[in-house]
Amino acid sequence: MENENLSAGEKIKVKVPATSANCGAGFDCLGLAVTIYNEFEFTFLEDEKIIVNAKGEGADTIPGDEKNIVWQSARLLLDRAGVEKIRGVEIHMNNHVPMSRGLGSSAAAIVAGLVGANAFANNHFTRHEILKFATEIEGHPDNVAPAIFGGFTVSVVEKNQVQTFSFLPKIKLKLIVAVPDFPLSTKLARQVLPKTVPLKDAVFNVSRAAMLTAALIEGKEKFLSVAFDDALHQPYRTKLVPGMDEVFKVARKAGALGVALSGAGPCLIAFSSANKKIENDIASEMVQTFKKFDVQSSALILDVDTRGAVVGISG
Amino acid sequence: MENENLSAGEKIKVKVPATSANCGAGFDCLGLAVTIYNEFEFTFLEDEKIIVNAKGEGADTIPGDEKNIVWQSARLLLDRAGVEKIRGVEIHMNNHVPMSRGLGSSAAAIVAGLVGANAFANNHFTRHEILKFATEIEGHPDNVAPAIFGGFTVSVVEKNQVQTFSFLPKIKLKLIVAVPDFPLSTKLARQVLPKTVPLKDAVFNVSRAAMLTAALIEGKEKFLSVAFDDALHQPYRTKLVPGMDEVFKVARKAGALGVALSGAGPCLIAFSSANKKIENDIASEMVQTFKKFDVQSSALILDVDTRGAVVGISG
Repeated sequence: MENENLSAGEKIKVKVPATSANCGAGFDCLGLAVTIYNEFEFTFLEDEKIIVNAKGEGADTIPGDEKNIVWQSARLLLDRAGVEKIRGVEIHMNNHVPMSRGLGSSAAAIVAGLVGANAFANNHFTRHEILKFATEIEGHPDNVAPAIFGGFTVSVVEKNQVQTFSFLPKIKLKLIVAVPDFPLSTKLARQVLPKTVPLKDAVFNVSRAAMLTAALIEGKEKFLSVAFDDALHQPYRTKLVPGMDEVFKVARKAGALGVALSGAGPCLIAFSSANKKIENDIASEMVQTFKKFDVQSSALILDVDTRGAVVGISG
Repeated sequence: MENENLSAGEKIKVKVPATSANCGAGFDCLGLAVTIYNEFEFTFLEDEKIIVNAKGEGADTIPGDEKNIVWQSARLLLDRAGVEKIRGVEIHMNNHVPMSRGLGSSAAAIVAGLVGANAFANNHFTRHEILKFATEIEGHPDNVAPAIFGGFTVSVVEKNQVQTFSFLPKIKLKLIVAVPDFPLSTKLARQVLPKTVPLKDAVFNVSRAAMLTAALIEGKEKFLSVAFDDALHQPYRTKLVPGMDEVFKVARKAGALGVALSGAGPCLIAFSSANKKIENDIASEMVQTFKKFDVQSSALILDVDTRGAVVGISG
């Protein structure tokens, strides 16, 4: 296969969407891609050198050596594709996705590395294989799946294999994301979860996750009002995000179809119908309510990304 | 409204499908209607007398007085519709749905009474109102919802309100139901369930219920192979149905897309693609395997009922 690869030195551009996992009821399985992106330009090198040039969100915290997760992901794919001639990389990245906020910035980095290297390796692997590698690196598919496929994704992990179903909702949604000015470690957000939960809470989420998926796929807005709610993770994480419940309340009051913690937080995401044109009101209510709890935040108003990671190649 | 009602003495025929709740992953929220029916003929009377004439499944166990659940359900609806002139009823029923086997025979009785009385009351209530009453009587919507709407249903219960989303799968399914020769009380099957469950088991079902719903709606057969599995109720109920795990295994081996305990059991239901024409093989494997565990059973080979309860009126 090696002789079908691109030549070292060619530039590969990759654009990967931010993602929001869980969507309330779909804890640890549902996710969606949204229209804010990290952009990457790869030049794979035969020399053993790593150059990372980052600007935008978190630029000064991104490792410029072999610890860089984008490079590690690319390296893994090149190894598995049997591409031996590449020993280094030059990566330019322009990051728009806030880091450690629950918007899948690390998933975006992993997917970028894999997709970029796969383009170099002449698309040696399918998107489902990319998903498998990305899940292996990230530990779970919740963010990497929508980052790869776009739209909404439902993922089931069985014996270390992942299956992902992706779909576009039949309702035109606006996503309003309130981004607090503090980061939250996924590890901490995971630690506050109990090992066991009441059976009735499990049923609470099972029924809503099924309803949510069905209502999105068939475009039945009226069923969404109960469908985003969660009993499995958000109640335990509310103490990590001051004002969370109140922000949820005002967003609903302003007309949101549903509200959720984005991934493990601290971002909060509201879902509204694009037809209603209420996204600005919801955004403003969310930011103002956070302020009452001494949380500074900014709001993003986004659409569902429909394409997932995309690649462009230039000479 | 009363003068718009039918006259006492007119015959109202109602046909209600059997139903299978849970479908594995969709514990306590998912259900489907299948093509085996109980048939009822109502004659509402101004006299205070109750005549119940039953034949077929469980005919000799059905109360012929005011304890009869069909009449109780009809009575509740007539009261709520403000129909005061009716004090009695003559009910002829022909039952094909096995009783206390997990095929929704009590839900069928409740829905029949409500739908029959509603026809008498000139369709005073919508199907969603009928669902509300039926859920109130039955205690949960899992069987009454598909008995009313047909197809598959996802129900969410919130503050004693029930919302039900009904859909027809895009895959043509065959349902193979192995019916053991012993009844199982829903109460007992409920008692063996734990109050709390591991969080990972909750996620197991949340992800699969969402996948199951999505795959059925969009007709993506390949995603069904993991989607019916359950960690929330079947593992605890396996001891109540000798041979359950082994019957599941042989049904899968014979090509079933998925297998599940039907409701609270003891019926086991296998789902297969109609195109494959393997339903007879699956049925035979299931019955033979039950036999190895000294369980006599018969098999029903059914389709998805698409209409739910239907009414006919004759003079």
